[in-house]
Amino acid sequence: MYKLVLIRHGESQWNLENRFTGWHDVDLTETGVAQAKNAGQMLKDAGFEFDTAYTSVLLRAIKTLNLALDEMGQHYIPVKRNWRLNERHYGALTGLDKAETAAKHGDEQVKIWRRSFDVPPPFVDTNDEYFPGHDRRYRHIDPAILPRGESLALTIERVLPYWHDEIRPAIQRGENIIIAAHGNSLRALVKYLDGMSEEEVLGLNIPTGVPLVYELDKNLKPISKEYLGDPEKIKAMMDAVAKQGSAKK
Amino acid sequence: MYKLVLIRHGESQWNLENRFTGWHDVDLTETGVAQAKNAGQMLKDAGFEFDTAYTSVLLRAIKTLNLALDEMGQHYIPVKRNWRLNERHYGALTGLDKAETAAKHGDEQVKIWRRSFDVPPPFVDTNDEYFPGHDRRYRHIDPAILPRGESLALTIERVLPYWHDEIRPAIQRGENIIIAAHGNSLRALVKYLDGMSEEEVLGLNIPTGVPLVYELDKNLKPISKEYLGDPEKIKAMMDAVAKQGSAKK
Repeated sequence: MYKLVLIRHGESQWNLENRFTGWHDVDLTETGVAQAKNAGQMLKDAGFEFDTAYTSVLLRAIKTLNLALDEMGQHYIPVKRNWRLNERHYGALTGLDKAETAAKHGDEQVKIWRRSFDVPPPFVDTNDEYFPGHDRRYRHIDPAILPRGESLALTIERVLPYWHDEIRPAIQRGENIIIAAHGNSLRALVKYLDGMSEEEVLGLNIPTGVPLVYELDKNLKPISKEYLGDPEKIKAMMDAVAKQGSAKK
Repeated sequence: MYKLVLIRHGESQWNLENRFTGWHDVDLTETGVAQAKNAGQMLKDAGFEFDTAYTSVLLRAIKTLNLALDEMGQHYIPVKRNWRLNERHYGALTGLDKAETAAKHGDEQVKIWRRSFDVPPPFVDTNDEYFPGHDRRYRHIDPAILPRGESLALTIERVLPYWHDEIRPAIQRGENIIIAAHGNSLRALVKYLDGMSEEEVLGLNIPTGVPLVYELDKNLKPISKEYLGDPEKIKAMMDAVAKQGSAKK
């Protein structure tokens, strides 16, 4: 039996401002820092010992992981950063807040985006500041496969190769793994692991900074799944995420 | 031509208390945190862009690196942690301050340790708390090769395989490398790169938190070497390190 821990980064500056963030690289707020440390403390208290950590190439996930590992006294384990664990790319919505998005695209269109599994946001042009091809962190990736805007469906397609090629084999080697990532890249993993339908994953809201612990059988099928911490508080956090609009990650 | 940056971690709690630290895993002080951020700012101002970072498995070096990379906005590059970049292991001196060491071993013996290249400190037993074999971070290493106390000579022997097998090939592939490590593991690298004698390396005092920039030719021979920052301040810091006793790292 294997254990796997997923954790969504703590509150970021643009979460707070309710802006579409996606691949834009914002920092954690003070609340976000406290959430990350608290997650580390919970994992330490529960006796977790990790072998390898995975995260995205975005500061809010990397910092959440570093703070949690420091808190656990497990700063010494290998940390692997990969762009495939990044948040969903919000295309031309990046940087807009709720009101700006509604003003620009209309309430009906916003509803369609929020409720759809495979309708992507408007794409950015390759000369747009939010096209990842201008950022040196993606210099080793063919610009043709870099996203210009992603639906949840496209996000899942982009995340899963990393699971299959890198993370799954590590788990099968017997490594205890922690993944610090984002609302939608974690939704991709949970949908896959739990065999969720498109409908079900749209209803899934992962709270920030709360470790989600899976027990997996030898075929990596979930035996159990639970959030660490006080169930009532976690329920309140999930409801808050749902209210924010599932898109604002 | 290649560039390589070395940086010694910022002030730690036991630096401040003037205790032999070695492989004991202490945190940075507030001054140490500020030094690390300042180093990141200097590297950013100088326009450095790194491809890979290397560090030890000790918190003070990892944290110095994380803080500097965050400051540079280069938190997304791969960070490789390895035990071979750890500080010299001070054996049974670990945890002792200057006065305690003199009281326990006598001034004459202390002088011998401080001035010698290859006289190791008294070894710890394998049941001692400071024997690394009890620490899960070294679980993949044969306890027979884990140090129980190291001279500078033994430290160099332990550090250099990692340079030859991992770091040098990365530089030759054209990667811009930063290494965040410790007073004596960096002395090992500098002695090797500069072709220093045993005498010379004993006189070498690397200041904390100041980036040391090498330019290397295609055979990785140094063309130039300089500390980033105000030369007078750096001189004062090197003198302070020398006064502390070259052993207290």
